Amino acid sequence: MAIWLDQASADFEQRFSAFLLTKREVSEDVNATVRAILDDVRTRGDKALHDYTLRFDRVDLATAGLAVTQAEIDAAFNVVDTSVVDALKLAAERIERHHARQMPKDDIYEDALGVGLGSRWTAIDAVGLYVPGGTAAYPSSVLMNAVPARVAGVPRVVMVVPAGGGAINPAVLVAARIAGVSEIYRIGGAQAVAALAYGTETIAPVAKIVGPGNAYVAAAKRQVFGTVGIDMIAGPSEVLVIADKENDPDWLAADLLAQAEHDVGAQSILITDDRALGEAVETAVERQLKTLSRAETAAASWRDFGAIILVDDLKASVPLANRIAAEHLELAVADPDSLMADIRNAGAIFVGRHTPEVIGDYVGGSNHVLPTARSARFSSGLSVLDFVKRTSILRLGPDQLRALGPAAITLAHSEGLSAHARSVAIRLNQG
Amino acid sequence: MAIWLDQASADFEQRFSAFLLTKREVSEDVNATVRAILDDVRTRGDKALHDYTLRFDRVDLATAGLAVTQAEIDAAFNVVDTSVVDALKLAAERIERHHARQMPKDDIYEDALGVGLGSRWTAIDAVGLYVPGGTAAYPSSVLMNAVPARVAGVPRVVMVVPAGGGAINPAVLVAARIAGVSEIYRIGGAQAVAALAYGTETIAPVAKIVGPGNAYVAAAKRQVFGTVGIDMIAGPSEVLVIADKENDPDWLAADLLAQAEHDVGAQSILITDDRALGEAVETAVERQLKTLSRAETAAASWRDFGAIILVDDLKASVPLANRIAAEHLELAVADPDSLMADIRNAGAIFVGRHTPEVIGDYVGGSNHVLPTARSARFSSGLSVLDFVKRTSILRLGPDQLRALGPAAITLAHSEGLSAHARSVAIRLNQG
Repeated sequence: MAIWLDQASADFEQRFSAFLLTKREVSEDVNATVRAILDDVRTRGDKALHDYTLRFDRVDLATAGLAVTQAEIDAAFNVVDTSVVDALKLAAERIERHHARQMPKDDIYEDALGVGLGSRWTAIDAVGLYVPGGTAAYPSSVLMNAVPARVAGVPRVVMVVPAGGGAINPAVLVAARIAGVSEIYRIGGAQAVAALAYGTETIAPVAKIVGPGNAYVAAAKRQVFGTVGIDMIAGPSEVLVIADKENDPDWLAADLLAQAEHDVGAQSILITDDRALGEAVETAVERQLKTLSRAETAAASWRDFGAIILVDDLKASVPLANRIAAEHLELAVADPDSLMADIRNAGAIFVGRHTPEVIGDYVGGSNHVLPTARSARFSSGLSVLDFVKRTSILRLGPDQLRALGPAAITLAHSEGLSAHARSVAIRLNQG
Repeated sequence: MAIWLDQASADFEQRFSAFLLTKREVSEDVNATVRAILDDVRTRGDKALHDYTLRFDRVDLATAGLAVTQAEIDAAFNVVDTSVVDALKLAAERIERHHARQMPKDDIYEDALGVGLGSRWTAIDAVGLYVPGGTAAYPSSVLMNAVPARVAGVPRVVMVVPAGGGAINPAVLVAARIAGVSEIYRIGGAQAVAALAYGTETIAPVAKIVGPGNAYVAAAKRQVFGTVGIDMIAGPSEVLVIADKENDPDWLAADLLAQAEHDVGAQSILITDDRALGEAVETAVERQLKTLSRAETAAASWRDFGAIILVDDLKASVPLANRIAAEHLELAVADPDSLMADIRNAGAIFVGRHTPEVIGDYVGGSNHVLPTARSARFSSGLSVLDFVKRTSILRLGPDQLRALGPAAITLAHSEGLSAHARSVAIRLNQG
């Protein structure tokens, strides 16, 4: 039972505003625990990793080894079905080809005064990739994080993944090799984040940490931010489907449930101008729910956060979509381009009835790490840009300094910074 | 008295590593105070702004007005010296021209399978710019933050600036108009950040907040992050000067002091292959210190965090510079290009003896908001990219879905996500 919001109702604006503010995450305060673990790993290094891994993952690194060996990765290829290996290779190839187009170009030039200006891009020296253990270990996420890092030219991509109970999902190891990960360590939780940020005897520190994780991992990433860079802290996933009446309700129901099965905090929203379609989709959702492997999760998500929004005219869906700023936006309408032109806030847009969002999760080529919880209003999905940084370059000769120096001196004095003024004036023989 | 580090000493690596970890900021825990202010402004809106502004800034907004009027800005132009207005205009023009080149281009294309892929860039709808009050109100910072937002196409740029004791620095108002700021409000502190993030009766909320501030402002930005985007939290400024013996020690001393005068936590470092030059610079620093308007600040910074590093060969300065990852790097050497080629980590590079860093603070055209505290290892200075976001676009027809769908279904099943698999399969009549 999703909620219904009807734009024709007098209280629509009020209800829609409240709907936008719905909190879908329980935030757990684990900061003190995490701080203690970070400090301990920083001080005791490998020894602390051994202790926490024994306690939390029940894995003895003295026998299992901290580093995952090449032989283990080779063995994983023998366990994983060939069709999965091939699908991962196809996905990696498409992700690589798409992301290669995102590589920014240096721009070094001289202006009319002869001042040399420039932006020079370099890859980050080393990146850590956190991969959760257990069922949340998605090989597709390994590709989505590691392939863009490689495309950016990051020379060292270090993966950490906990082996809860001793086993790492072999498909994750396969994905790591396909993506060109350089090193893999059998650790997880805040202790793994600490090892990546501060380094230990065995693990050299990285400069940035990316990848999803539980509340402890998220808190640890926030706490080491500054020492290293981090990616966004992702919340539960969401999809917004804008649909006209010419849709098969079963297709739309399947798309809404694909999002809902991720997490009880996930959110699936349908906007349509046809009440009958909305009702048919609702019925189809209930029917399809019965046969899902993750029916309980999907049902809870749909019940608590699902919504069907009725508009008079599909054009009215655009301003609503811009306020929702969904991670995923499907345009299941006859003329998607006319709507798309005015969409400003969305992590990714899936255009037309034959582009289910799931294609973007795996093999579309675009990245599936996208801004959640309305953050598409101000941020973007993961890309090659997250693995490079820009240095600006300024180059003046005596002539250029004579041309620009006096204005700099004026501004420095106006801001009360006399050493600033002197640093220019002294070169103009006014020091 | 800066410290000396000599690469020829046996304990150099140990001392240099410790030097890299030096903390230059006292962190103040103001989180609880800030949280209460944020909650209060969120609940009581304008009324809370009035109360806090009366209490902290001793300004009665009932008489002064929350919004700064056009007449006040006009009046500021009559107070500020014409040479300063002209210098601000020159700076704004150069910043605009340089930043216009940073605007990313949409990339919409079809791959060999006929899959439509794309990256589309849009400006953020509304951006808030925090400007500190008092002596820290730098008109140059208004330009450096607001001009790139305008270049990006942000339709609404909202400035907040506290009027401690009733007055706003008129040069800040002049800079705001030159930069095209849309609205200015006479508020500061955590309450101003709250107003920007949540909105009040008078102030519509923004989607991202940028600009420097004190510990309260920084804590408030961290706390509203997620509701809105924020820029980096900048630490004290730093400069690294790499110099050969052919330099005038007075020029280098002036550059080191220009950084040191910013803050007692600022850091100025000289690397040279010539001990005599290092000693001459040290003497020049002591001499110049005597005549600075901010001598006390500069002296404390140089005493506590200044450093002179002696290397055998200037080539050896490059790996050290990459580890220091300075906000500002000056290459005061005969052949700067040979060193520059291998520099990977620096916020900005100032090339040659005639490019003092101060030019970049004001009129170079590049941005002076740059990564501090070694964060140039993983992040970049402020640019147009900070005011736009990217939406990815995926478009398949029935043929493309037939080509890619099976691999997506395989991966969905391997990850245990049956609703994901169905969302594709149902469109291939395998649902």
